Amino acid sequence: MENKKIKIGLIGLGTVGSGVFKTLKNFDNIEVIKIAVKNKNKKRNIPNLDEKIVTDDPYEVVNNPEIDIVCELIGGLDPALDLIKTAIQNGKHIVTANKELLAKHGVELFNFAEEHNKVILYEAAIAGGIPIIMPIKTILAGNKISKIEAILNGTTNYILTKMDIQGASYDDVLREAQELGYAETDPTGDVEGFDAAYKITTLATLAFKKRIKLENVYREGITKVRAEDMKAANDLGYKIKLVASAKMDENGYADVRVHPMLISKDSTLAHIDYVTNAVSLTGHPIGHITLSGPGAGEFPTASSVVGDILIIAAELDKTDYLLPMMRCNHQEPAKNIEISDTQNKYYLSLNAKNNKGVIGNIGNICAECNISLESIVQKNVSENNTADITVITELCREKDMQNAVNAFKNSQFINNVNSLIRVQI
Amino acid sequence: MENKKIKIGLIGLGTVGSGVFKTLKNFDNIEVIKIAVKNKNKKRNIPNLDEKIVTDDPYEVVNNPEIDIVCELIGGLDPALDLIKTAIQNGKHIVTANKELLAKHGVELFNFAEEHNKVILYEAAIAGGIPIIMPIKTILAGNKISKIEAILNGTTNYILTKMDIQGASYDDVLREAQELGYAETDPTGDVEGFDAAYKITTLATLAFKKRIKLENVYREGITKVRAEDMKAANDLGYKIKLVASAKMDENGYADVRVHPMLISKDSTLAHIDYVTNAVSLTGHPIGHITLSGPGAGEFPTASSVVGDILIIAAELDKTDYLLPMMRCNHQEPAKNIEISDTQNKYYLSLNAKNNKGVIGNIGNICAECNISLESIVQKNVSENNTADITVITELCREKDMQNAVNAFKNSQFINNVNSLIRVQI
Repeated sequence: MENKKIKIGLIGLGTVGSGVFKTLKNFDNIEVIKIAVKNKNKKRNIPNLDEKIVTDDPYEVVNNPEIDIVCELIGGLDPALDLIKTAIQNGKHIVTANKELLAKHGVELFNFAEEHNKVILYEAAIAGGIPIIMPIKTILAGNKISKIEAILNGTTNYILTKMDIQGASYDDVLREAQELGYAETDPTGDVEGFDAAYKITTLATLAFKKRIKLENVYREGITKVRAEDMKAANDLGYKIKLVASAKMDENGYADVRVHPMLISKDSTLAHIDYVTNAVSLTGHPIGHITLSGPGAGEFPTASSVVGDILIIAAELDKTDYLLPMMRCNHQEPAKNIEISDTQNKYYLSLNAKNNKGVIGNIGNICAECNISLESIVQKNVSENNTADITVITELCREKDMQNAVNAFKNSQFINNVNSLIRVQI
Repeated sequence: MENKKIKIGLIGLGTVGSGVFKTLKNFDNIEVIKIAVKNKNKKRNIPNLDEKIVTDDPYEVVNNPEIDIVCELIGGLDPALDLIKTAIQNGKHIVTANKELLAKHGVELFNFAEEHNKVILYEAAIAGGIPIIMPIKTILAGNKISKIEAILNGTTNYILTKMDIQGASYDDVLREAQELGYAETDPTGDVEGFDAAYKITTLATLAFKKRIKLENVYREGITKVRAEDMKAANDLGYKIKLVASAKMDENGYADVRVHPMLISKDSTLAHIDYVTNAVSLTGHPIGHITLSGPGAGEFPTASSVVGDILIIAAELDKTDYLLPMMRCNHQEPAKNIEISDTQNKYYLSLNAKNNKGVIGNIGNICAECNISLESIVQKNVSENNTADITVITELCREKDMQNAVNAFKNSQFINNVNSLIRVQI
C-alpha cells in the first residue's frame, strides 16, 4: 500500500477544479491522472499542469480503469448525472460539489452508489469550506437535530451587506457586485434563492434523516428588499439576511425554506457579512452551535473537496464495507408543512395616507385577521402627505398575514404594501 | 453483526457521565454495561439506571472482558492514566474528555494505543460540544493550519462578559459566578488559564502535526483584568477575552499561549459571550473559519463523547486497520518561540501625575525601547491630581515592552502601571 498512489480524475478545471488540482499537489500519495475540461485550448494559469492528462471528453475520466475517485466539479444536471452514474458503475467513488444535482437527484444517486458499494461525498456542495456535512454524519451523530438557520449564498449576503452599509438600493449594489464578479450576468440562481434552496434541501435531508423534496422548499429571493427596509430593520435592532432554514417539529413535520429574514443583532448570523456563509444548528444533546467561514471560492471549496478525497483515500485499501457513517440513505420522505400553515413573526412596511384614522385601521385589520402586534411606528411623512408605517407582529399564521395584506390593499387608508419580511423567532 | 450490541463502560457519572448515559439510551445498538463511580450511595437523578451495573471500583470497568469501548470521564491524572492504559492493554478503545491528561501524557497515551492498535478519541476534551477535533483530523486534512485563536474556557468567558456588561470588578463577578456554579470554589484552574492551556496544547499539536509541550505554552490568567480595562477597551472598539492562541510560522516555530487579549469588535470572537466557546482557525486552502457553541455542560459535552463512541462503534466489526485518520501520532516536537521574542501589540494603562511633561515622558520611554505608539489617551483626572493614561502600541517585541514597563516603574511621572494586555493583531 505504501507505494501505491491513489488515482484521481477531475471533471472540471474552473475555479474550484484549479484549487483542487493545486492543493492535491501537496499530497505525495495522491495523483491526478486525468482532467476533463470544456475547452482544451483555454489558457490556464496552473503550474505543473501536464497537458497530456487534459481531455475535452469527460467520459475519458469516468471510463478510465485506473482512476479510484472521480471529482465532479462542473455543476448542473446534464451531463453531470450521467457522468457520475457511469463512474460509479465503473467502480469509482465520487466527490462532488454539485448542489443542484444533489437536491434534484440525491436519492437516486445515493441509492445507485449504495447498490455498487461506492460512496458519494459532497462537503463542498454546501457552505463551501465550512465543515458541516462530515460533522453531522459523524461527530454529531448522537444528536436529534431540530433546527437549522443558515446563510448559504455568498452573492446575496454580499448584496445585503452592501445595501446595509451603504444604504444603497438592490439594483445599484447588484450592478456593483456583477462588476466585481461576485454576481453573475444572470443572477437569478442566486438572488431568487435557488442556490440556497438546493443547499438547504440536501442539508435538511441529512440533518433530519428524512428526505426533503426540493418542491416542498418555500423560496423567496432578495430582489424586493428595499434600502428603506434595511434602515428600518437596523432601527429596530435587526439585520436583514437571506436565511435558509429548516425545522422539524415533534410530529415529524418539516418546514424548510429560503427567504429574507430580520435577524436580531444579538444573533451570530447577524454578524456574518459579505460572502461569508454560516450554519447555525440546534439539537439535543448539543444545544446550539454556529459554524462560519468562506462559502465559495477557489481555495475554500478546494479544502472541502480535498478533505473528501483524503477521507476516501484513507480507506481505499480496505476490504470491509467502506465508511459506513458517510453513506446517505434517507429515502423516507419527510412530512411537509405548507408555508401558509406556518407561524411567523412579520415586519410589514405600509405606505399610508397621513390620516389620524390610519393606525386604528391597521390595528383593526390585524385584529380581524387574528394578528397581534408588537409595535407600529409611523415614519417619514412625505410632501404628498403620505407616511411610511412599520409594523412588527407577534407570532401569527402566514395565512392570516396574507389575508391582512389583501385587506391592506383594499383599505382606503393604505396606498401601498411596501414590504412583508419574516422576523427570526 | 446486526444483533450484537456494542458494549460501553463508563468511568465517572458526574455531569458529563450522566449526559452520556442518558444520550446513549437512544441507541439500540449500544449498551452501557458497567459504570464506575466514586460514591455508590450518592443519590442520582438518572432514569433507567440499573444499580447492578454501578461499581465503585473503576478497574471492574477496564478489566471487564465484554466491554468494547471505555469512556473515561473523571478527569485528572491519577487514576485516569493507569485506567486508560489498563483498558487499552485489555483491548478496549478509549473515549475521554480529560484535557489535563492529554496535555501532560498525550504522546505516551497515543503511542501506547497505537502499539495495541486501539484508538483514543477526545472530541469532548476541547471546546465541549463544538466539533473541532474530528473536522481537523478528517475533512480539514487537506489544510496547512497556521493559526488558531480560541475561547476555550467558559468560566473565564462568563466572568469577562459579566465584567463587561455590568462594569463590575473581577472579584465581584467571580463571587457571583461561584454562587451560580459557573466557577469552582477554588477557581485557579480556570481563572489562571490552566484549563485553556491544556486544551490549546492538544489542539495545537493536532493542528500543526507537531508536538506542543505544555511547559512551552505561555500562560496568564484573568485575575488582573480591571473593570477600567474593560471600559477602556470598549471605548477603543475592543472586547477583552481570555484567548488561547497558537501560531506556526514558516520556519516551523510554534507560538502557543493563553492570556487576556483585546479583540476587535469586528472579530467573531468578540461576540462569543458567557459560557460559549469558539475556535477560529486559519489555514490554506480554507482561509478562515470560526466554530462556536457550548464549551461545557452535561449535554453539549455528551454530544461529543457519544459522537466519538458512535464513530468507533461504526467500525468495530472491521478486521482492517481501524479509523486511520483518527489516530494521533505527532511525536516530533515543535520548535518553540519564547514569549519574550514574540511581536505583539499592547494596551497599556498607566496612572500618572497630571503633569504636562507626562505624555512626552511616556513617548520618550517607548521610543527608547523601540516601541512605536498608535495612540495615547489621558482619562479621569482624579482629585489627587493623577490621571489614567491609555496607550495602544504598534507591533513591538515583548522584550522591549517589558523594558518599557520597568522604565515606567522608575519614571518620576508614573505612579503605577495599572495593566498591560496584548491586543489581537
